[in-house]
Amino acid sequence: MNIIHKMILVAGLSIAAFGACANDGDWRTIAPNNLLLIQTPYGEVVVELNPEFAPHHAQRIRDLAKAHFYDGLSFYRVIDGFVAQGGREEGDVPEWPELKNENDRPLEGLDFVPTGSPDLYAPEAGHVGGFAVAANPDAGRAWLMHCVGSMAMARDTDPDTGDTEFYIVIGPGTRYLDRNLTIFGRVIAGMEYVQRLNRGKRAIGNGVIPEKDKRDPIVAIRLAADLPEVEQPRFEVMRDDGQAFADYKKSKKVRDAAFFYRRPPEVIEACNVQAPVRRLIENDNAP
Amino acid sequence: MNIIHKMILVAGLSIAAFGACANDGDWRTIAPNNLLLIQTPYGEVVVELNPEFAPHHAQRIRDLAKAHFYDGLSFYRVIDGFVAQGGREEGDVPEWPELKNENDRPLEGLDFVPTGSPDLYAPEAGHVGGFAVAANPDAGRAWLMHCVGSMAMARDTDPDTGDTEFYIVIGPGTRYLDRNLTIFGRVIAGMEYVQRLNRGKRAIGNGVIPEKDKRDPIVAIRLAADLPEVEQPRFEVMRDDGQAFADYKKSKKVRDAAFFYRRPPEVIEACNVQAPVRRLIENDNAP
Repeated sequence: MNIIHKMILVAGLSIAAFGACANDGDWRTIAPNNLLLIQTPYGEVVVELNPEFAPHHAQRIRDLAKAHFYDGLSFYRVIDGFVAQGGREEGDVPEWPELKNENDRPLEGLDFVPTGSPDLYAPEAGHVGGFAVAANPDAGRAWLMHCVGSMAMARDTDPDTGDTEFYIVIGPGTRYLDRNLTIFGRVIAGMEYVQRLNRGKRAIGNGVIPEKDKRDPIVAIRLAADLPEVEQPRFEVMRDDGQAFADYKKSKKVRDAAFFYRRPPEVIEACNVQAPVRRLIENDNAP
Repeated sequence: MNIIHKMILVAGLSIAAFGACANDGDWRTIAPNNLLLIQTPYGEVVVELNPEFAPHHAQRIRDLAKAHFYDGLSFYRVIDGFVAQGGREEGDVPEWPELKNENDRPLEGLDFVPTGSPDLYAPEAGHVGGFAVAANPDAGRAWLMHCVGSMAMARDTDPDTGDTEFYIVIGPGTRYLDRNLTIFGRVIAGMEYVQRLNRGKRAIGNGVIPEKDKRDPIVAIRLAADLPEVEQPRFEVMRDDGQAFADYKKSKKVRDAAFFYRRPPEVIEACNVQAPVRRLIENDNAP
């Protein structure tokens, strides 16, 4: 019996396989102004900011990064399967003005690419710029979905009270937060480091870790644009309006490998097929 | 501004709140014969085995635990957002006979409690014994769903080739594996330790971690029934056919707290509302 075979077939097709087939024109470079680098004790987490949906929240995060606001603060509230929340927790750092929510926006003006599959929470589901987006065409509105890796602003009961406390979604089942909290980015690399963060308990203090020394620190948060150019990492996202992404989605929807002796229903969920991302490592050994 | 308030409201109601309200009759004790204890370098992962759906796979795992088969092996294939696979990887340990798949079973004879919400992958979704279960009433079949925390057997292309290699689901988007692989349990505690496991890369060796010293070890896997009685942990699961679980599901379906200024669609997903679990710690200081 071939054990390697056994392992490979469970996974189905890999993202890399598609990256290899796609042309360079199928990819867009993320602007350094939208590339957020979160240093954790376990490794670097990279987030693409989304000013198309949340311009003021994206700008707030850029401002906070430039001010080194988060450096030395912590992931103080982490609930397994739900969210990892970071920031200052208590008010011993001067407050920043509260932001008006950017929970949704007009559908008009967006290059919305529907999945073609139904969605449990919205009339339509699809992608914009590689992000999972839900839409209500009758109401003319669209919004970013709460997916694993979504980065959003926490708030009080009033929807216009977000300021500095962010959370990253670390489990399924958070779509009920859609249109109630403002998502402003998504993790495109290093999600495994977010998953390593020390957890609190939901039943005790609603996930806030009581012992401060058990909270994992936010070592630093920087915007790539604020780094010297030679230190800026370069990430590319597969364009979601081309053939490469259509092929990628099809590979997730139609599972026709022999391994699937019972063909799964042809369904894809926008959260689980967001656009693939690749990091470019420059080889500058050329003479 | 009350930051604590900000934090608490993001989470909604806690599981603990329901545990506190429910009567003892709302809970069932997990038999030590169905309680699997996986020791990882980060902490203990507890799994409830499910012989109602996968009797021979559950028995295989009991036999492997009794034989100390897994002790010192590793989580050798871990893909973030997908699965953590463990076992021997290569054939330097004698093989165990391959098992016939137990991917689904007759719906008849099960106490199936539907969620009442639609499902993207099956005609009906609900719970049996607290596990997320999908059903096709016309075909008279039911099966365990691939949810975060599901534990299942890997296999070759032939569906009847599972033997010892297991995987635990660590991300959303794996429902397409339903009815193709045999799920035999679910993680009921310690999922955060599974999430800490070192990852491989999907693009390189399909997630198999090439450096053996970077693979996290399976320290030991034991069945609670094989431990001395005083060392057996005691876990209880909320019964899914009573008022307590109905109330729990309603709290996840109807979000009417003031925080939700836009009421979410009244949808619940069986994977994300599996029955709450509690661990009993005996206080034997009584005179």
